[in-house]
Formats: sequence, C-alpha cells, structure tokens
Amino acid sequence: MLGYFGPEATFTHQALLALADDPRWGDGVASAKPYSSVPAALAAVRAGEAEAVMVPIENSVEGGVTATLDILGDPEATPLQIMAEVLVEITFDLAVRPGTALGDVRRVITHSHAAAQTRAWVEQHLPGAEVVERGSTAGAAQEVARPDSEFDAAICAPVATLLYGLTAAAHDIEDNDAAVTRFVLVARRGPAPAPTGHDKTTLVAFMRANHSGALLEILQQLAVRGVNLCRIESRPTKTTLGSYCFSIDAEGHIADARLAEAMLGLKRICHNVVFLGSYPRADGIAPHLPIGGRDADYQAAANWLAGLTSAG
Amino acid sequence: MLGYFGPEATFTHQALLALADDPRWGDGVASAKPYSSVPAALAAVRAGEAEAVMVPIENSVEGGVTATLDILGDPEATPLQIMAEVLVEITFDLAVRPGTALGDVRRVITHSHAAAQTRAWVEQHLPGAEVVERGSTAGAAQEVARPDSEFDAAICAPVATLLYGLTAAAHDIEDNDAAVTRFVLVARRGPAPAPTGHDKTTLVAFMRANHSGALLEILQQLAVRGVNLCRIESRPTKTTLGSYCFSIDAEGHIADARLAEAMLGLKRICHNVVFLGSYPRADGIAPHLPIGGRDADYQAAANWLAGLTSAG
Amino acid sequence: MLGYFGPEATFTHQALLALADDPRWGDGVASAKPYSSVPAALAAVRAGEAEAVMVPIENSVEGGVTATLDILGDPEATPLQIMAEVLVEITFDLAVRPGTALGDVRRVITHSHAAAQTRAWVEQHLPGAEVVERGSTAGAAQEVARPDSEFDAAICAPVATLLYGLTAAAHDIEDNDAAVTRFVLVARRGPAPAPTGHDKTTLVAFMRANHSGALLEILQQLAVRGVNLCRIESRPTKTTLGSYCFSIDAEGHIADARLAEAMLGLKRICHNVVFLGSYPRADGIAPHLPIGGRDADYQAAANWLAGLTSAG
Amino acid sequence: MLGYFGPEATFTHQALLALADDPRWGDGVASAKPYSSVPAALAAVRAGEAEAVMVPIENSVEGGVTATLDILGDPEATPLQIMAEVLVEITFDLAVRPGTALGDVRRVITHSHAAAQTRAWVEQHLPGAEVVERGSTAGAAQEVARPDSEFDAAICAPVATLLYGLTAAAHDIEDNDAAVTRFVLVARRGPAPAPTGHDKTTLVAFMRANHSGALLEILQQLAVRGVNLCRIESRPTKTTLGSYCFSIDAEGHIADARLAEAMLGLKRICHNVVFLGSYPRADGIAPHLPIGGRDADYQAAANWLAGLTSAG
Repeated sequence: MLGYFGPEATFTHQALLALADDPRWGDGVASAKPYSSVPAALAAVRAGEAEAVMVPIENSVEGGVTATLDILGDPEATPLQIMAEVLVEITFDLAVRPGTALGDVRRVITHSHAAAQTRAWVEQHLPGAEVVERGSTAGAAQEVARPDSEFDAAICAPVATLLYGLTAAAHDIEDNDAAVTRFVLVARRGPAPAPTGHDKTTLVAFMRANHSGALLEILQQLAVRGVNLCRIESRPTKTTLGSYCFSIDAEGHIADARLAEAMLGLKRICHNVVFLGSYPRADGIAPHLPIGGRDADYQAAANWLAGLTSAG
Repeated sequence: MLGYFGPEATFTHQALLALADDPRWGDGVASAKPYSSVPAALAAVRAGEAEAVMVPIENSVEGGVTATLDILGDPEATPLQIMAEVLVEITFDLAVRPGTALGDVRRVITHSHAAAQTRAWVEQHLPGAEVVERGSTAGAAQEVARPDSEFDAAICAPVATLLYGLTAAAHDIEDNDAAVTRFVLVARRGPAPAPTGHDKTTLVAFMRANHSGALLEILQQLAVRGVNLCRIESRPTKTTLGSYCFSIDAEGHIADARLAEAMLGLKRICHNVVFLGSYPRADGIAPHLPIGGRDADYQAAANWLAGLTSAG
Repeated sequence: MLGYFGPEATFTHQALLALADDPRWGDGVASAKPYSSVPAALAAVRAGEAEAVMVPIENSVEGGVTATLDILGDPEATPLQIMAEVLVEITFDLAVRPGTALGDVRRVITHSHAAAQTRAWVEQHLPGAEVVERGSTAGAAQEVARPDSEFDAAICAPVATLLYGLTAAAHDIEDNDAAVTRFVLVARRGPAPAPTGHDKTTLVAFMRANHSGALLEILQQLAVRGVNLCRIESRPTKTTLGSYCFSIDAEGHIADARLAEAMLGLKRICHNVVFLGSYPRADGIAPHLPIGGRDADYQAAANWLAGLTSAG
Repeated sequence: MLGYFGPEATFTHQALLALADDPRWGDGVASAKPYSSVPAALAAVRAGEAEAVMVPIENSVEGGVTATLDILGDPEATPLQIMAEVLVEITFDLAVRPGTALGDVRRVITHSHAAAQTRAWVEQHLPGAEVVERGSTAGAAQEVARPDSEFDAAICAPVATLLYGLTAAAHDIEDNDAAVTRFVLVARRGPAPAPTGHDKTTLVAFMRANHSGALLEILQQLAVRGVNLCRIESRPTKTTLGSYCFSIDAEGHIADARLAEAMLGLKRICHNVVFLGSYPRADGIAPHLPIGGRDADYQAAANWLAGLTSAG
C-alpha cells in the first residue's frame, strides 16, 4: 500500500499522482492512503503498514516539512530510503462550484499561507471579498464543494479543483512566480533504484563533537572524489546542543565508484552517516564528471596499484 | 514603530515581547503592530512604515518562514539588516477558560501543525475529544476566549494563554521535546549593533553561473581566515534555474578584522554578496579564535608588510 | 652484488657500511662496487648488474644529488624502488699520516665544498696553511695516504680516515653544526619491505598540462586520507617546458589502507605517478594517525557500505 | 661593487655577465669580484662590502647551491632580497689552445660533475683520452690556457673558453639535453624592482611547531587569493629537529594586492615569514589572474565594505 501526507487534494497528493504511469509504483497510486502528518506517514512506512509514502522535503506552502529531514535521518530508527523525487509547481486556482462566475465571488476560504501568497490578486480581482482561513487548502475546496456552503470560492491546488468537482474561475493566481516544491517517495531501506546516469544521493552526516572545521572536512571528502553537491543544509542535532549534522544531496549514485568512495570517507571521519537513498534526479541533469571520476578510472587505478604490490 | 508577523499571541509575538527590557527596542514592544505575513512585515520595514519587525527565520510551527531568507537576501530590494535574534522554545498549553477542568474538555481547536505535535498527548489525556483545525493557534485561543465559544480548549502558545485571559489546564503538552525556533528583528540597513565578543554575521553569497566547486571555494574564503560557520543552507536562486546561493551565519562581527577580510574575499569571488547584519548571538557563545585571528594579529602583520615595502 | 656512488671512503660509502648488520643486505656490504656517478650506479641496477646501490638523495657535500630524483622518477625507464634509507652526519676529520702532529700541517688537500665548510676552522687552527682542492674528499685522503705525498693532511669523511689508514688530527672541524644527509638503497621494483609501523613512501606525481591548482589538488588527495608529508619538492619535468612534477615523501606504507587510497586518488587525477618504494623511516618516527585512518576504520566503513547496498 | 660566486669563468659568472646591458646593474658587471663560496658572497652583501652578488639558487653543475636557500632565508641575519634572476643553459665546450685539433686531444681536465655529464661524448669522440678531475671547470680552463700545460683540453663553460683565450674544439658536448640553471642577484633589503606584470616573489615560511597540516594551510593562504606557485621545497630547519620551513616562489609582486594579502595571511598563521624579494621572471610569463584577483577587484570590494559599515 502507498500513502502520502494528506489530506486528499493537496500538492503532496498531486506529487503522488504524478507517479501514476511509473511501472514500479503506478498501480498503488489510486488507492493510496492519506496520513495526517509527515511523521505519521513515515511511521507507517517504518511499521510496515505502508510500502512507501510521498512527503514534501523542501519548503511547501502546506507546511509539514519541518520534521521531514529530521525524521528521515534519525540514526536510531528503522532505516528509510528515498525511491523517487517529484517536482511540483505551486500554483493556485480560484475554485468555484460549476456555475459560479468570478463576479459572484464574495466569500473565499483557504489556508493562511495560500491567502498570503494570493493577497494582491484577490485585492485586485475580488475587491471587497472576505477571505476566511481554514486548516488546509484541500479542506477549503472540500467545503466549497458542498452545495450549501456559505463560501463561494476556495483558493487551492489544481488537483483539489479537479478532485472535488469544482471549476477554476481563475488559474495561477499566486502573486509571484510559482515556486517549485520537491517531494520524495520514501520506503524502507532496500536495493536502490538502478543507476540512470543522472542520479542523486541523499545522506545525513553527523559531525563529531563540536568541531569547527567539520563542514569543510566533509565537503573535502566529496570534492576530492569530484562529487558535486546539489543541496546542503546544516541542522542542529536534537541530542546535543551546539552539535550539527549536515543534510546533503550529492550528484551520483551509490553504485558509482566515486560516490561510494566519498561515502566511505565520510563514514570514517564523521560521528555517523545515514544513507537516505540514490534515485533519479527529477530534473534529469547528468553530473559533470571530473578528470579521473569514471568507474573505469577507478578500475584502472586499482589495477595499477595491484601491479605495484605484486611486482617482483 | 515596531512590528511583527502576527496575529497577536503567536510565538513570533512572544519573541518580540522578549525584547521588552532591551534598552534600544523595549519602548516599542507594547505598541507593536502585527502584520499578516512575513513578506508584509518586511515590506513595511522597506517602506519605512515600521522601524523594525520580528519574523521567524528558521522553521516555525506557525509557518511563514519559507520566504524569510529569500526576501531578506533579495539583492534588488532596499537593504535590510538583522539587529537582534531571539530563541523561543516551542511549547504548547492546553488553554481553557478559567473554571474549565481538564476532565471537561470535549472540543479542542488549534492549528494543524500544533495538532500534529500534540496528538499522542491528546489521545492519552483527552480520549474521545474532537480536535478541530483553525488557521492559527492564536486564533484558536481567541476563539476559546469567547464566553459562548463552542470549544472548550485551545492548543496554543503560552503567550496566547496569557494574552487572551485563559488558564493552562496543562503545560508542555508537545509529544516530543520542545523545539527551539529562532526569530530575528529586522531593520533597514544602518550601523550594526556594537561588537560584544559573541556576535554572529548573516549573509547571502550568490555564486557565479553554474560552477561546481563554488561552495567549497566559499567555505575556504571563510576557513582561511579562521571564520567558523553557525549555519549554512544552499538555496536555489529565483532568477536562473540551476543556480544557487548560500545563506550563511558566520561567527564574528563585521568590525572584526578576520570577518571583514573574509567578506571581502567572498565579494571578490562571488557573483554578489548580500550583508544581512552583525548582531549578538542569542546563545552568548564566543567564537573560537584561531591562531592569527585576533585584530591585533591583523595589525601586526600589516605593520610587518609596511616595514618590508618601505625598507631601503 | 651491491654498489654505491663512489669513490671509496665517501659519505655515501659510509652510508652503505651502516647496513653491515642488516640481515637482508649486510653480506654484500664489504664487497660492494663503487660507481663513478649516481646515474652510473642507478643504471647498473636497471641493467641487473647490481642488486641494489646506495646513493645520496638530499643535498650532499660531495654533490651527485642533482639527478638522483630525476633518474629515480623517470616514468619511461625500468622501475626502481627504495629499499632502505640511512642518515649520515656530515662531519669532517683533519686526517694525517700517523706521526704527523697538528702543528706540522702546512699543505692541506680536500674537495672545494669541504674547504668551504671548514674555512673558519682552518684559518684559526692552521694559520698560513695552503689548502688545495681536489675532485673528492676521498681522493684527497688517498693522496695523503701516500708516504711521499706533498700534502700533510686531508679534510675528509671519518670513513676515509679509517679506510686509508690515516689518523684524525682533529674531528668535527666543520664551521657549522654537522648537516645530516639522507642516502637511499635502491633496487629494481619488487615486494616492498614489510611495514614496521614507522614507514615512509616516496613517489613522484606528474601533474597534467600546466594546471595552476595542481599542487593543492595533489596535497588534498593526501590530506583527505590523513596522510602527512615528510618532504615535498616541485621539479620541472624535462619533456615539457613549464610543466612540473612533485617529488614527495609521505608518512605510511603502501600496505596501509589510507596510503593506498591516497595513491589511487593521485593516480586518477595526475598525468602519471611513479611509486618509488615504501620503507622504514631512519628516524623511527611513527605517523600521527588521524581519526578514521586505521586499517580497521577502512574495513569498518567498507562493511557498512556493503551492508547498505545489499540491504533488502 | 658587485660580486659573484667564483672563480671567474664559471656559469655563475656567465649569469652575472648576462646583466651587462641592464641599466641598473650593467656598470658594475665588468669589475665584479669573485667570492670563493656562496656563503662568502652573501656575507659580503650582508656586511655591506658588496652591493649585490650573483649566486646559483637551483642545482648547478658547479655545486654551491646547498646552502643558498638556507642562508638567504636565515631569519636572524641581515635581511637580503633578490633583485633579478637569470637563467643559464648548462652546456659544455671542449676547450683547447688555439691550434690544437680535436684529434690531438689526449689529456683532458675538468670538474667531476662535468666529467660525469660528458662521459658518453668523450668515450665516443676521444677514445683512449685520459680525463683528470679538478676543483672547478674554470680552473680546468685556466690550466689548459697555460702554454706549457700538460693538458690538451678542458671541459668547461663557454664563458671560460672565451675568458681564457681558448677555442672550442666542440660545443654542447653534454650527453643529455642542456639543463637550465637559475641564478639570482642578491642585495640587502630595500625597495623592490618595480612591478612589470610578470613578476615572481620568493619567500620562506617557517611553520609552527610540528604541525601536520601546515603545508596545506600555507598553500590555502595562497590559493584562496588566487596566487599560484612556481616552486616549492620543504626544508628542515636547523634549529629544531623535525620542524620544517617551506621555500616558495609565487607568481606576482608584493605590490599586487592579492600577493600582499596572501603574505599577510602567511605571516599570521606561520611561526615566521622571510620575504626574499619581488622581481621580474626571467621567462617573462605573466600570471593567470583568477576571478577577483586584480587590484581593481580588491579596491571595489573594499569600497563595498566601507559602504556597508558607514551606512545609516
């Protein structure tokens, strides 16, 4: 069974639906179960109740991200692994019941974040309209879908417009360009998806007790093997005040020799390293391979060394 | 006039109230104006309407952080500057009207994040209670404060219990240890607060067009002057897909020779650097000074060089 | 057969004699053959005429070092390997025929370098004496050993005093503290001497076409595995003007996991790497082992990675 | 008065003569005084007896280099400074008295190093000739110049052939391609030669007490300011066993902002730094200027920082 951070009809749900044609996961998409929080969704995977769940991993308009990285990287818990990533454009509809015209909209319901991101549009196109805040944009759409709702419109994700049988009186009403949010499908640890040549590896490196040069040493372990970073974030660890871990997305797959050697280097110098999966990049960008960075270069060097030590 | 990301009685408001005894800002705390979003609060500072505003800068239970760093670091907008930081423990009260006993609580109202973080406690201590979600924990408290409210309790910040004349039927009801969230007081650019010996400097370094070793080069500019990092976060820049900036908190004050030279180095190698202020660390930790890192060491070296080139 | 850069009775010969009690090489010391130059001695090893030869590898009073490193590191020639190193104090005797008193010395013969290094002593203790220069200090001693020599004394190595049946009218007559010169015993490539826990590895890293950051990259390959340097020297390569190689002595043995991995890293990023042997340090200093630098750390990390990729 | 490491007619003398047309030094070339050793020549400068002296600074066929770097870099002695460098091709003549034909040469005299470097040529072209070794190639040429000499030919520098009125029976008789040796003109510390855009700076960095990462830190001080190395050599310091200094030639002039800042950085982290001069490169190669490395970039960054701290 698949799951996702719900409720239904949120951007996270939309991210899961994007896997409908995926040969590995597509079958489970339609029957996926919503969980009320990211921790609940991830706990369901750890407990074996869900095979995999979709959760946001970078800042999302619907919140819920705060703890994703911390829970994923918990070194004490059942190991989890990212199997896929999905990018979703955060755009908003002004969703109405079929038959409602834009000019008829007086009362609008939405989540506070969505309200903040569409304020200018609403002031311009719906002057005088009242905007009421609700716990989620999906809940807002569900409310508007009730025939006797006191609200005329919801500001919500396109997927909510669709799922609740509403109509978009306007699309893309966010005040700024649409942000792109990243979601990941998380399973229990197991074999990684096969390398595609444009993969990404996520890991959390826990530094040793308050050691000032730690981040530089961590980056040098990667740089010296020609492994580039896609993302890095320092995060305070919960257990010890003033101690840090680093959440990292690196170019490449654990099956690539250079990434494997970099991970070994991190493992040796760090207090701990939690591997969170190697999986295809949603943007399909292939890594820039440095001189000496191909698997063949690693093999050639190993052959050379073997020749040296067996000589005689 | 001071302001803050409201509504009243949130953790952000609580952070601002923590400055009540501050000689520089204390007078404005009581009359501070709530803004409906972080962008609105920061825009008010840029427009000169507010002298300074309190906003969350790291993940907060009430959201709103998503854009803080991006808006602060916008290189095109009126420069802003952090004047102070405040750490707040994110703990929750079960707030009731005076006279309501814990055993009487049937209907609870709160924000979805707060609901998620107190679920286990609620299930154990209020079995059978209904939890309804509202746009903010402060709004929930305000609702419960109405004598004819249909809700018996709000899950909210201690400051909301206090401000709305409620009583805590239970304190610290979060399921996990309280998180600590960081808030900052932001003003237009001006003279930095005087160095205290335990200061922090926030800046955003925009890397040159997609350049793989950029982060390592940025860190080496800091490391070579013995400047440690407190926090780092890579962030995609909005203008160019695939380009990054790095949001950094570094130990030290712009008036410290080593930090000033590191900033000069960053300025030379980066596409742009946005300075966001030097201010006292809320945790009061003094930096570890590396060999050669004191202002006196910089002066001594400069004297030596001057002696070399004037010799003759 | 063993050999050495001769003639007999030089400091190089003295270095070879220091191996007289070595179980592996001692038997060949007495019958070792002198070669007229370092290139000739090394060519004899390459040709299989000599099993191993002793040559100076750092600046020596008798010269001959210029080409040692270049010839050893020639990537086109039969591979050579350092089997042992010997440190010799460069001290000088004023060697006379038995019966000659210090006060009788009028005419002195020696090599120009030895003359330069003992000038002050000679001026003080042999005022008015004539000093004539000869091609080698050993030749000078041999000359004085002739009963009818026109010279009263030679300035020479203690070993020459001994071998030519002379007597030291004075010891340690060098004007400054005795330098210590390093000599190495070189054989054709074969199994390295067994690790002792205080070993050194010599190699030559040829950088890729004129690449400015090359040295830093080379050092980072070593540093990231916690391998310290004992010596480094940049040397222009003969084939391409403006191109460099680096002659390096690193702490550790090719059988140590961290040194082996560092060598593999160098091999991948450099144009070429020539391995010149792992052998016990003459000074017996053990390396400082960095965190994660023991063979056991390498094994533990490898086990961890294997566990990750086999999971499922 | 100028001086040089003599005797007359050596490659060092040839290097000095190469300055005959130099507007600053040319007048003193003809009357320059030979000194019997590099230490003696440098002592004459320190004592004020000579204004400047020419000495070899890299391996030379005539020896004498051993101590050049150590004496130049002595932090306790009167500061010295390199004013110019000269590159000389080390080629040998077979020099004879006018009238002697190649076929008449039976007895040859030369220095042992020169003999070693021309052995193959002599065996091929002068089979059966006797080669006798003398203290210097110049002395050999002077001997052959005596009408009643028992020697028919000297193997010597072209300048010796010329100065002693000999004729070259053969040119370029070295067995391998001519090496190029570097010589420097050394004066007491004073204003450096004006920047030319293709300058080099020589310095000695003394590391702090046995500190394993020292070399990497030293190189990072240079790299972070975009200063490339032309040469590096680790050298044991005399005073403390196991302690090192690094002799470095870096691209650029002390008047260049990036080199000056790199020197300041070294001064702060090292035990000591000895500046040995900024002077034009003999090969005329201009440095590769990194991003942000021009003086204008340093000035622009300084202006930016000044603007930040004066804002208000």
